Amino acid sequence: MEQRVSLITLGVADLGRARAFYESLGWRGQEVEETVFFQAGGLGFVLWGREELARDSGLADGRGTGFGGITLAHNVRSRQEVDALISAASGAGATVTKPAAATFYGGYAGYFTDPDGHPWEIAHNPGFPLAEDGSLTIPDFGSS
Amino acid sequence: MEQRVSLITLGVADLGRARAFYESLGWRGQEVEETVFFQAGGLGFVLWGREELARDSGLADGRGTGFGGITLAHNVRSRQEVDALISAASGAGATVTKPAAATFYGGYAGYFTDPDGHPWEIAHNPGFPLAEDGSLTIPDFGSS
Repeated sequence: MEQRVSLITLGVADLGRARAFYESLGWRGQEVEETVFFQAGGLGFVLWGREELARDSGLADGRGTGFGGITLAHNVRSRQEVDALISAASGAGATVTKPAAATFYGGYAGYFTDPDGHPWEIAHNPGFPLAEDGSLTIPDFGSS
Repeated sequence: MEQRVSLITLGVADLGRARAFYESLGWRGQEVEETVFFQAGGLGFVLWGREELARDSGLADGRGTGFGGITLAHNVRSRQEVDALISAASGAGATVTKPAAATFYGGYAGYFTDPDGHPWEIAHNPGFPLAEDGSLTIPDFGSS
C-alpha cells in the first residue's frame, strides 16, 4: 500500500447546504450524480449523502451526530489566518467547538464543525512546513 | 481557505495496534508523544488516542463503534491491486465490510475497516487518473 490517501468522502444530510458551506469558504467543486467533487491538493475531497456512503461502505449508519473518531486539519501560515478562517467558517454556518488558542507545541489552533458535524482543525504549526502549493511535510522527529 | 487538506487524524483505542496495522501494509511512521505521524503524499496522516482527539477538538466522544460519517479511499492502478490490498489488510486484522466488486462507474472496489473501525475503500477507478507519485486528479466532468 503506497503511503498516500486518494479520497476523503464526507457523508452529508443536505448536499446543497454542504457544498454551499465549502464554496462560501472559497472552494470550487463539481457536482455529478448527487456527489460533489473538489480537487484538494493531490487528493479528491468528496461530499455524498450520508446514507448512501454508509450503504456503499457496507456499514450500518448509527447516530448522525457526535464525534466520529476522525478529524481533518487545514494548516495555514499565520495566527491571523487561523482567526480569519474560523471567523469566516462561523459566518458560513460552522459551529466553533474550540476557540483558537495557543497550543502545547508552540502553535495556534481552533476547531469548528461543518454543517454536518465533521470537525476541522484550523492550525498554524510552525514545526510542520507548508510548501508554496500547500502540501505539508511531517518533520523528521529523530524518533522511530 | 485554500483548497487542500493538511492532516487526517484517526482516533484509536490502542496506538501500538493501530500503528502495527498500517506498518504491516507497508507504511512507515514516527511516534512522538503518543502520536504517530505518517507522511501521506502532501499531507500528514496521524494516529492519536480517540479520547484525546475528541477532547482536543472540543467534542464529546459518544459511541466508539459504527459509522462515523466519513470514509477514506486508497486508489490503485489495477483490479489485481484492489484484491491484493484487501487481502493483505484482512490478514493484518482489518474487517472486510464490502468485498471487492465491479462498480457502477466502471471501476472495481471494496471496503475494509481498520482495527478501530475506520473505513477505507480500496478502488481502481479508470476515470480518476493517478500520477506517478500517487496524486489523484478529479476529472473535468463538464458540469458545474
